[in-house]
Amino acid sequence: MNFRSDNEVGAHPSIIQAVSRAFSSGSAFSYGADDWTQRVERRLRELFDKPDLVAFPVVTGTAANSLALACCTPPWGAIFCHPSAHIAAEETGAPEFYTAGARLFRIDGAEGKIDPVKLAQALAQPVYGVPHFPQPAAVSVTQATECGTVYGPDEIVAIATSAHRHGLKLHMDGARFANAVAFVGCSPAELSWKAGVDVLSFGATKNGVMAAEAVVFFNAELARDFAYRSKRGGHLLSKMRLVSAQLDAYLTDGLWLDNARHANAMARRLVAGLTPLKGTQLMYPVDANEIFVVMPAHMHDALQDNGAKYHPWPSDRPGERAFRLVTAFDTDPADVDRFLSIAKSA
Amino acid sequence: MNFRSDNEVGAHPSIIQAVSRAFSSGSAFSYGADDWTQRVERRLRELFDKPDLVAFPVVTGTAANSLALACCTPPWGAIFCHPSAHIAAEETGAPEFYTAGARLFRIDGAEGKIDPVKLAQALAQPVYGVPHFPQPAAVSVTQATECGTVYGPDEIVAIATSAHRHGLKLHMDGARFANAVAFVGCSPAELSWKAGVDVLSFGATKNGVMAAEAVVFFNAELARDFAYRSKRGGHLLSKMRLVSAQLDAYLTDGLWLDNARHANAMARRLVAGLTPLKGTQLMYPVDANEIFVVMPAHMHDALQDNGAKYHPWPSDRPGERAFRLVTAFDTDPADVDRFLSIAKSA
Amino acid sequence: MNFRSDNEVGAHPSIIQAVSRAFSSGSAFSYGADDWTQRVERRLRELFDKPDLVAFPVVTGTAANSLALACCTPPWGAIFCHPSAHIAAEETGAPEFYTAGARLFRIDGAEGKIDPVKLAQALAQPVYGVPHFPQPAAVSVTQATECGTVYGPDEIVAIATSAHRHGLKLHMDGARFANAVAFVGCSPAELSWKAGVDVLSFGATKNGVMAAEAVVFFNAELARDFAYRSKRGGHLLSKMRLVSAQLDAYLTDGLWLDNARHANAMARRLVAGLTPLKGTQLMYPVDANEIFVVMPAHMHDALQDNGAKYHPWPSDRPGERAFRLVTAFDTDPADVDRFLSIAKSA
Amino acid sequence: MNFRSDNEVGAHPSIIQAVSRAFSSGSAFSYGADDWTQRVERRLRELFDKPDLVAFPVVTGTAANSLALACCTPPWGAIFCHPSAHIAAEETGAPEFYTAGARLFRIDGAEGKIDPVKLAQALAQPVYGVPHFPQPAAVSVTQATECGTVYGPDEIVAIATSAHRHGLKLHMDGARFANAVAFVGCSPAELSWKAGVDVLSFGATKNGVMAAEAVVFFNAELARDFAYRSKRGGHLLSKMRLVSAQLDAYLTDGLWLDNARHANAMARRLVAGLTPLKGTQLMYPVDANEIFVVMPAHMHDALQDNGAKYHPWPSDRPGERAFRLVTAFDTDPADVDRFLSIAKSA
Repeated sequence: MNFRSDNEVGAHPSIIQAVSRAFSSGSAFSYGADDWTQRVERRLRELFDKPDLVAFPVVTGTAANSLALACCTPPWGAIFCHPSAHIAAEETGAPEFYTAGARLFRIDGAEGKIDPVKLAQALAQPVYGVPHFPQPAAVSVTQATECGTVYGPDEIVAIATSAHRHGLKLHMDGARFANAVAFVGCSPAELSWKAGVDVLSFGATKNGVMAAEAVVFFNAELARDFAYRSKRGGHLLSKMRLVSAQLDAYLTDGLWLDNARHANAMARRLVAGLTPLKGTQLMYPVDANEIFVVMPAHMHDALQDNGAKYHPWPSDRPGERAFRLVTAFDTDPADVDRFLSIAKSA
Repeated sequence: MNFRSDNEVGAHPSIIQAVSRAFSSGSAFSYGADDWTQRVERRLRELFDKPDLVAFPVVTGTAANSLALACCTPPWGAIFCHPSAHIAAEETGAPEFYTAGARLFRIDGAEGKIDPVKLAQALAQPVYGVPHFPQPAAVSVTQATECGTVYGPDEIVAIATSAHRHGLKLHMDGARFANAVAFVGCSPAELSWKAGVDVLSFGATKNGVMAAEAVVFFNAELARDFAYRSKRGGHLLSKMRLVSAQLDAYLTDGLWLDNARHANAMARRLVAGLTPLKGTQLMYPVDANEIFVVMPAHMHDALQDNGAKYHPWPSDRPGERAFRLVTAFDTDPADVDRFLSIAKSA
Repeated sequence: MNFRSDNEVGAHPSIIQAVSRAFSSGSAFSYGADDWTQRVERRLRELFDKPDLVAFPVVTGTAANSLALACCTPPWGAIFCHPSAHIAAEETGAPEFYTAGARLFRIDGAEGKIDPVKLAQALAQPVYGVPHFPQPAAVSVTQATECGTVYGPDEIVAIATSAHRHGLKLHMDGARFANAVAFVGCSPAELSWKAGVDVLSFGATKNGVMAAEAVVFFNAELARDFAYRSKRGGHLLSKMRLVSAQLDAYLTDGLWLDNARHANAMARRLVAGLTPLKGTQLMYPVDANEIFVVMPAHMHDALQDNGAKYHPWPSDRPGERAFRLVTAFDTDPADVDRFLSIAKSA
Repeated sequence: MNFRSDNEVGAHPSIIQAVSRAFSSGSAFSYGADDWTQRVERRLRELFDKPDLVAFPVVTGTAANSLALACCTPPWGAIFCHPSAHIAAEETGAPEFYTAGARLFRIDGAEGKIDPVKLAQALAQPVYGVPHFPQPAAVSVTQATECGTVYGPDEIVAIATSAHRHGLKLHMDGARFANAVAFVGCSPAELSWKAGVDVLSFGATKNGVMAAEAVVFFNAELARDFAYRSKRGGHLLSKMRLVSAQLDAYLTDGLWLDNARHANAMARRLVAGLTPLKGTQLMYPVDANEIFVVMPAHMHDALQDNGAKYHPWPSDRPGERAFRLVTAFDTDPADVDRFLSIAKSA
């Protein structure tokens, strides 16, 4: 009953097998000139129905986000994001580091989503071309959000339209992009470039791989300097097949989506069982695989006593105790049911 | 007959198995709080006979070097290294990036090694405490060097003494540290902290693993900010066991040294067969697993025609054609012999 | 009738004379080893009743703020300030640049002042020592604020106490520090180090000098690296006497305070005349020399037609037109009266 | 008899007068929108016979060089310069800071000048487009050099041709550009853009002004981001007229050239008197206003005893004592003669 995080779990057998094979097969060209890396790009082009996208494997989401943003903004640029965005609330200055000093501006909004009206207001400030002000350069949305909600295609379009009107690029932190696609039920294209996303951090690590993300540029021009930025960040692996073999398997036979669907289904199963219980209350709609929930003290105690693992979470209301539960590609329905049974009996 | 690079080869079966097991075993604490990462540090403490060292797994040598140096120098510091050092000749500004602007000064010397007299002269300049000058902060030596030679313990001591006299730290880029230890036949401690090394990039990638290096601080105080630097560089993997499991296996039962011994032996075998041949000439002594050799055109042509793979290398003498051959943990003696047989017949 | 900005006016005759003399007097040691620079530090030590402070002249407020903050925070640090703070709303990434990537967090509050309760909440987050989060390192207050209000000593103490409890440094952007002291009527010490300020950007440019600020460290240890940071920022003038001679004169015979008192008095005179007029409304209390005021359209038109100069200012309420008026060391009371007379007749 | 440095002297009366006037004249637009700044650009366009150049005043040579180079190179770029260049031997990481990490490569050559053959070899390396290597982006020449010699137009052309062939920009550190023009006797254009210089740090501080340099872009496209870079470096003075008024006077009635001619003439007068004396030896030809000379101990002692001031200088030959003498716009011929008379009598 480990619901602590989708980055504490292991990897899907297909991923493990792919890595094993990649390194048993002898020599391969180094620094991403190998077959796996080439194949990953081809698979992403097909998946996103975008034959001219370019993609780069990296080992962490922080690297993916920071490198992607560094391609979107000059050092004197401004990046707009939700206060809860990983790039703003965590990641310890990584975007500032990789962009050589771009400034973050937080745009608030309900349920972890940027309020498009507030964004439009912020972007309408008369700062363009005035050297006293950071120059608006990029908007970053998180999909699924840090509140476990998912932007629909129309919501992305609204933000993209604001951004593009002023010449900004739209970045999507898709650490849980697969869960978002699984929830919306549309194509990956509809939730990304067709909605106006310019560059996507396509997450995999949280969805059943070992350590692999892809930075996907829907506009190849944006990616022009990526290789230099990646190299000087120490992210150009000599044996890049380690990352690419994972992504290759992840993109094979819909594994990426199957994994996410399972995680989402387990989250729904949890919600279905929890919400009828007295004293529980969801903090946000559960669109993807994260559940933020208020539980009464006795229920929490009973769960803890019986070995359930999950994180406490800050709540705005005094006296209230909130928690985060995360499901994953390998969450066992039996674990969910056991969890619910304990909660019910508490 | 692929002698192009030790980073084009696959991984040792023990490494592959270790990674497979690590990810088949279910949940593990994230961000390096897992058992593998803890065990790697313990193993390194034993190997180096230094119970207070601290170590951090990273995925590339560039990251290892840059993060290590960033812990040794302020942004206005000066780093001294050989012109051929990877950090100076390649790595595309990574040290400058991670140190926030430290400046490289090249100290020449024969066979890829820093000339200790020239280093002492450079460090004797009256620049300390004067804000017009980059402040000498670190010396970086490469072991084995980029010329395939190896510093003996006394040579390291000479450099360390100069460095420490002026308050500088000594960094060792040990991308091929194992090959150096195998050559010298001393203990890892004698070739590192006992000789004055403060921080070591302990390489593994080129020696039979997938992608793993460890930054080893012999002085824990130096490592104080490492976690922040690593995080903002995007190098704190959530599933760190991917890197640590490799290093764990690498450090088990002497695999790291066995691999290097084999590679070195294969290099010696190549040298023994090549040097008697007319028109060949070694550019540097072959201490480790890299051979820089002048070969006559007809010999090179014959080798190429028969499928031998290796890189051309710049030569200082006009008209002369030089090449680099690299052996690896899995170099087949039969390949070496076939190579020599072709060269001989040419 | 130019009320556009206190940085559009000329310089006080004493300042002009001091600069002329400094450069007519022949040779002087370079890079701040000159007599003027030494004298400025002595004068500041007396003025602030702090014999161990250290001070450095710089040419702009942006340089003063950024260099001061860079001495307070590591690249992975967090700086807390009001959203209206110059360092957050303007200065185009200068703090991020000089700190090598520290992140700004905005703490809201009425009338341009940080709300100490919100600050305390932000600083109470469990992020200390956790590498995923920017490490709280500094709080920056603006004195007088960007709303023209002034923090009283107790208000500074409240913020300093929060900051110091968690090990943060308190920086004060004192671009209009003189106006604040003139308003409060206390000693410079009471409004700075005695209230907990660790480093002060002591402004002069807006108060009758040409281009001069001093970075005043009340804790010399904080200043340890200042000279290197300043040099690599291009702020170590070879003929530093240009800046120091201005500050020397500025600190002589209370010129700094006289200038500010005059500017404040002119602002009060404007307020006294404006506020009784129908349709006008102050946006904030006028503590220093900036007036943010709503005026009816016909009044604004009449003023413009008669040559009054001042900037429009964003207002939160739709339909309302707001403006900023700034007085200076040389504002002519006759100009104020003429302005009021036009406004009255409108 | 102060021959220590041309940055220890005062300022020419015309410069002092210009600054006094600029600040006595009341209001002026801030941040460089003032008349003086506009006029400086116009004067430079005329002086350089280049109606489309753009120019920016800054307060130090370090700022000029670093900002100019930052406009020429990406963070992963390589800058080539002579080992003695101020940007490489001093300036404490300023170029690395402003370029966000570009790497310096030293190209040796006699008498402080880049050897064009060595430069051509360095630029011919197959690193272009390869992410492992810093990308060659700029060459920087110092005019007059740090050895007091001057590149002739043809020598600049040779370097520029190499640079431009590979797409690099040519920067000239013209801290003593005026002395170089005075020596060569050609037009400023012939020694800059007509010879291939793309951006010039046009020095004035060492030639009789207080603190002023201009960054002159002969290609306006290169200057596109200058204002942002300058602002975030803290170099956009609100009362920019302080710098511009100096440059305005400096460029009026040939003051810039007259000052340099005088300094050069005084250097020649020193050389003419010194070189016949036994035991003296010039280290380099004296083209501009710096003299590097070996003098016997008794001569040096006699000069010191009689109050002559100048710096010792490192010499390559053991046992030899070398010194640097610098003349300036206001060097008194009587001082020169007195110096020579003491030397002669020694």
